[in-house]
Amino acid sequence: MEQKLFVEPIAWHNGAIRLIDQTQLPCALKYEECRRVSDVWRAIKKLKVRGAPLIGIAGALGFLLGMHKAKAKGLLKEAKKLNKYLASSRPTAVNLSWALDLMQAVVEAHQGASKKDVLGLLKTEVERIIHEDIQMCFKMSEYGSRLIKSQDSLMTVCNAGGLATSGYGTALGVFYRAHEEGKKIKVYACETRPLLQGARLTTWELKHNGIDVTLICDNMAADIMRKGKVNAVFVGADRIVANGDFANKIGTYGLAVLAHHHKIPFYCVAPFSTFDLSLSSGSAIPIEERDKKEVTTLYFKRPIAPEGIKVFNPAFDVTPSNLTTAIITEKGIIDRPFSENIRILYPAAYNRASKGADVCGRLGI
Amino acid sequence: MEQKLFVEPIAWHNGAIRLIDQTQLPCALKYEECRRVSDVWRAIKKLKVRGAPLIGIAGALGFLLGMHKAKAKGLLKEAKKLNKYLASSRPTAVNLSWALDLMQAVVEAHQGASKKDVLGLLKTEVERIIHEDIQMCFKMSEYGSRLIKSQDSLMTVCNAGGLATSGYGTALGVFYRAHEEGKKIKVYACETRPLLQGARLTTWELKHNGIDVTLICDNMAADIMRKGKVNAVFVGADRIVANGDFANKIGTYGLAVLAHHHKIPFYCVAPFSTFDLSLSSGSAIPIEERDKKEVTTLYFKRPIAPEGIKVFNPAFDVTPSNLTTAIITEKGIIDRPFSENIRILYPAAYNRASKGADVCGRLGI
Repeated sequence: MEQKLFVEPIAWHNGAIRLIDQTQLPCALKYEECRRVSDVWRAIKKLKVRGAPLIGIAGALGFLLGMHKAKAKGLLKEAKKLNKYLASSRPTAVNLSWALDLMQAVVEAHQGASKKDVLGLLKTEVERIIHEDIQMCFKMSEYGSRLIKSQDSLMTVCNAGGLATSGYGTALGVFYRAHEEGKKIKVYACETRPLLQGARLTTWELKHNGIDVTLICDNMAADIMRKGKVNAVFVGADRIVANGDFANKIGTYGLAVLAHHHKIPFYCVAPFSTFDLSLSSGSAIPIEERDKKEVTTLYFKRPIAPEGIKVFNPAFDVTPSNLTTAIITEKGIIDRPFSENIRILYPAAYNRASKGADVCGRLGI
Repeated sequence: MEQKLFVEPIAWHNGAIRLIDQTQLPCALKYEECRRVSDVWRAIKKLKVRGAPLIGIAGALGFLLGMHKAKAKGLLKEAKKLNKYLASSRPTAVNLSWALDLMQAVVEAHQGASKKDVLGLLKTEVERIIHEDIQMCFKMSEYGSRLIKSQDSLMTVCNAGGLATSGYGTALGVFYRAHEEGKKIKVYACETRPLLQGARLTTWELKHNGIDVTLICDNMAADIMRKGKVNAVFVGADRIVANGDFANKIGTYGLAVLAHHHKIPFYCVAPFSTFDLSLSSGSAIPIEERDKKEVTTLYFKRPIAPEGIKVFNPAFDVTPSNLTTAIITEKGIIDRPFSENIRILYPAAYNRASKGADVCGRLGI
């Protein structure tokens, strides 16, 4: 089956980084050029690029941009500085550190090489990261689609699509694949306050790809589930830890509780670059708290709350693994017990010898 | 204990109806004059006045306004027409029909009387409805406050406050009373998409009354509950049926499920004018579906979703009684079994002889 990208959210372009400014969607499809590392930092911070896998790629590209300006004799020092700086743009998604560490490792492994050679190797590494991200999305979509029947009505939150990855998507990739396989599906997209990635980005993507999508406010999900209109929920992740707990966009945990209450399968779709086995449970994941203005004003324009009101604005929440039905990765579907099955599958994902060979169709069954 | 109103959301003023245009809050406290019945219909439809008890009062005032223009010989015919017309402005809140029926009953009971006398009687009836609403809110707040301890952290959705009633509130009235009794409380206000009554109105009221309030997006409620920060949830209702199921602002049902999952008490606060014992279960309550533009654009301004996207926009959902801990009414706190206890308390609320005398402190315990 031919799978293809419909969008290129970020790319290396004439010595700079060209990215879609996602804060402008769906009103305008605008590209922005980042010529300085600080532009990339800000683009990540301000959510012009967002989505865990894409943040990783943006970080790697920002790293490459920064290394172009490094002194030939201080490559490793600059690499470490860039890693630390870019990683500080957003704390929750682990893909950012993952990609930056891969880039730094290239510099470390070639300390005697010329700057030109190192830059060449770094460019190759970025291209590999992007290529692998695309391939991982295709594999995840293939596994995930097995869980979908024709006529299924599905739900998702935030945007785990082409715009959150190199162009295909994690949770939405699963929907694209099911659609490509001829399954008739219907998707409810939760709008995802405060920044409305579901309303602005997910509906845009799904509609563009010919998928029947209905937009709802986040607080309508329970009502729709109660009416028996949801067969499964698919979400992405920003960080999955050793026991299967995972952080994702705020609201994900609530959806998981609602799905559990209504006995609806709840799936997390993410590549192994999203796993952080150094943490044993979700409570250790750092959760970014963002500007209160995201909540009190709509797009920082007209106020929707009295001046000076207190606000709690976490960008993510943690879904404990007991509410998750399965985790769909590029190496297979991970069932319970998660801790054990993650440990089995994780090394395979990073063992070059086993690359490309799926470990198994579905663990735990 | 002296309890007082801090706001007068609607009033009869120089032969017209003066109301706060609540769609302008919190940016501006603007009053609007309704001189025609159609102005009142539109004010209800467009949510300039909203909240189940206040809609009832607005309906009664609109009825009075209409009767001023009725032909002296066709009072009952006009009364029936007005009842039907005004009731059509919003279908879910039963308080509207309840108040209109009370007004029509006055006309029916005085078919021989002069128009002037009937108008006088109708004015007295409206004043009685308003006065009773205030007294009912005071009583509910007294009962509800018994369920609150100092240092409690509470949660609510939409606006069940002074702005939703004659000036004191149902769920928020409970918070005001607890605060007046010197209890230290903290309130999380869910913003309540799509029209943000929580962000715009509830935070405005609570802040004005000196209560520690924190605004959250609806999809953050689960995360806060999980962190153990919520001791109880208090919500209003638009219609409560015989088995205790109730309709309230969309998102209420989801909150009830989340509270249940986290073992947090979930209370509904509403006067008996909100009860509709003609319906046996919540599935029979008509649910208003509103304009999709409420979801796709923020205040009908800048679009937040692609043009032509499908939307589901129910204004209310139904919370089944098995998720409700207790219903707080002006006649006491109703515990399970709801069907039985509602039947015991309901006639007392409408038995003039027992008026003013509380039936019991708490049933079912």
